[in-house]
Amino acid sequence: MTFSPQDQEFMQLALDLAARGRFTTSPNPSVGCVLVKQGQIIGQGFHFKAGEPHAEVMALRQAGVQAKDATAYVTLEPCSHYGRTPPCAKGLIDAGVSKVIAAMLDPNPQVAGRGLQMLQDAGIETAVGLLQEKAEVLNKGFLHRMRTGLPFVQLKLAMSLDGRTAMANGDSKWITGELARSDVQQERAKASAILSTSATVLADDPSLNVRWQQLPADIQQQYAIENLRQPIRIILDCQHRVLPTHQLFKTDSPVWLVSDKVRDLSDYPDFCQHIQLKTIENQTALFTLMQELAKRQVNNLWVESGATLAGTLIEQKLVNELIVYIAPKLLGDQAKGLCKLPNLHQLSQAPQWQLQSVEQLGDDLKAIYRRKA
Amino acid sequence: MTFSPQDQEFMQLALDLAARGRFTTSPNPSVGCVLVKQGQIIGQGFHFKAGEPHAEVMALRQAGVQAKDATAYVTLEPCSHYGRTPPCAKGLIDAGVSKVIAAMLDPNPQVAGRGLQMLQDAGIETAVGLLQEKAEVLNKGFLHRMRTGLPFVQLKLAMSLDGRTAMANGDSKWITGELARSDVQQERAKASAILSTSATVLADDPSLNVRWQQLPADIQQQYAIENLRQPIRIILDCQHRVLPTHQLFKTDSPVWLVSDKVRDLSDYPDFCQHIQLKTIENQTALFTLMQELAKRQVNNLWVESGATLAGTLIEQKLVNELIVYIAPKLLGDQAKGLCKLPNLHQLSQAPQWQLQSVEQLGDDLKAIYRRKA
Repeated sequence: MTFSPQDQEFMQLALDLAARGRFTTSPNPSVGCVLVKQGQIIGQGFHFKAGEPHAEVMALRQAGVQAKDATAYVTLEPCSHYGRTPPCAKGLIDAGVSKVIAAMLDPNPQVAGRGLQMLQDAGIETAVGLLQEKAEVLNKGFLHRMRTGLPFVQLKLAMSLDGRTAMANGDSKWITGELARSDVQQERAKASAILSTSATVLADDPSLNVRWQQLPADIQQQYAIENLRQPIRIILDCQHRVLPTHQLFKTDSPVWLVSDKVRDLSDYPDFCQHIQLKTIENQTALFTLMQELAKRQVNNLWVESGATLAGTLIEQKLVNELIVYIAPKLLGDQAKGLCKLPNLHQLSQAPQWQLQSVEQLGDDLKAIYRRKA
Repeated sequence: MTFSPQDQEFMQLALDLAARGRFTTSPNPSVGCVLVKQGQIIGQGFHFKAGEPHAEVMALRQAGVQAKDATAYVTLEPCSHYGRTPPCAKGLIDAGVSKVIAAMLDPNPQVAGRGLQMLQDAGIETAVGLLQEKAEVLNKGFLHRMRTGLPFVQLKLAMSLDGRTAMANGDSKWITGELARSDVQQERAKASAILSTSATVLADDPSLNVRWQQLPADIQQQYAIENLRQPIRIILDCQHRVLPTHQLFKTDSPVWLVSDKVRDLSDYPDFCQHIQLKTIENQTALFTLMQELAKRQVNNLWVESGATLAGTLIEQKLVNELIVYIAPKLLGDQAKGLCKLPNLHQLSQAPQWQLQSVEQLGDDLKAIYRRKA
């Protein structure tokens, strides 16, 4: 199947629409849809929020009766199952579209080709694979969870030029500049959940929330404050040291405390839950935790922690992406290191990462690395 | 004085010509010259090597009698003094040019405006400041030495993502990839001299030379192997531990060994010299060393050393630029740190650097930082 430049243009528009839902759709994927008839756009839509209409429905509503014999461009295979909304494939069939072009198949086991099959069975022409790479990037968390049963884990590291996160005495305010900190807010806003530890809570008493006021101005324009979705805050707290008085609980949004013991949360706000998980050598079994979080529909997990959890996640190959903010400072060899890793004897044993991108944020750098398989 | 787009174009050409001498002119500055008459280029030249003709002479030779009433574009004020060659200002006057546009004044105390004055006194119109910023970058080492009496010091740091230079046991082959190592060859090739320590020589036995075969292909095309200039190798060797058998002496090019004692070099090759300098607390007095190197016409000093010299140079504010190669590896907190610095109590005390540029070299990053005044 070859696609025309016009096909590409409409799919790009569908992708741009889909991206407008990137802060709000979790645990659903971001999806965009464009309906075209005789070269004219007659409907467009995107999925905004779980429970609200899917992209196809929005576009079909806009097109009305014109949808008959139109071509639909969708960034993900239309769904074929009854969830909180009826299947989109059925909607497209009922509206009488003649052709559906999907950027990619939906790996969700409830869909996985059945959406396109439904369309084909109804005599609708289908094609798949247009701008697939971009569609993959858009929903890397959701897709990873569907394919592996694990969240897509992004480890945030903010460090000096010599790889240090704080002075020997713990002072770490602020390593990076305002633009980098604003970027972190944006990354948090895209995450399904944020993972940290009681050690970090006790040391810094962070809120670990998204502060709309600190989002970059261009994001604020697209993302109204009243739509703000807070990621779930997940804290490893084996020794039950997180207290109801901590800043975490000032934001009215889910906090999940993880430990291996039974825990009474009657003194904590209602939005606080406990996850009981076994520990190994006094550490939460992280692979089991990841499976549990995926079951709870966490697509993108954003980790902000100290050197111990960072090192353990890296060592256990549970980190998919490193998001590294590098500040133009030198703290020297007595300052605190970035991650604790077991001692290696040869440089060639050191885990390799693949540089994805680098950008300047003021005097700071933001570099993204993917784990090599 | 305003300059026309055409003026800019000719000066840009002069700058491009000047850059062709960047590997070979040390200790002289790189200079380019373009002669234009009635909108046509009638002569162009650049300085290639100390002792050989200056850029203006090359361009005037090409132009011949046509130089009369031409405009000269030069990237640096024409010299006014008799050095190894006669003053270029005189050459321009004798050739009868009617106008001279210089990108910048020459801060060399032997020139410092006298070149333009000579031209003006001969009735030639002069202007200065066209593309000055670019001209500054081209000769940052020479200009810095002329202005401060110190070399422009670039500290090369090659490190893992977590700011480590080697495993705990010392294994450091290879942190960075081939492209980054090739880039280091290019940086060495531009330097007047390379500074290192006997500790590095004893640990790694490096050649610290430029290996033409490892230069990037585009550089090789501009820079023929027979013109290769080796930077001076300067080794801090207080305890006289560098031996005639070390790799350093396999390259037939100056090596300067620095210590505070009298040293007999009769067992060393003729190209090896001794610099005797006082020490303070068993360390070479680095500021005095820098003054001495500037006197010896070292414009750009490229430092490749361990964490101790790196830290001391940074602490003493003797580093002008950090050239940081960041490899996509994590070595962990037991690996060797980037630079030894005294313990600070507050993050705000940490010296700040200014990000100049960042580029990808394969999976490595190359970031350049300037010291904030």
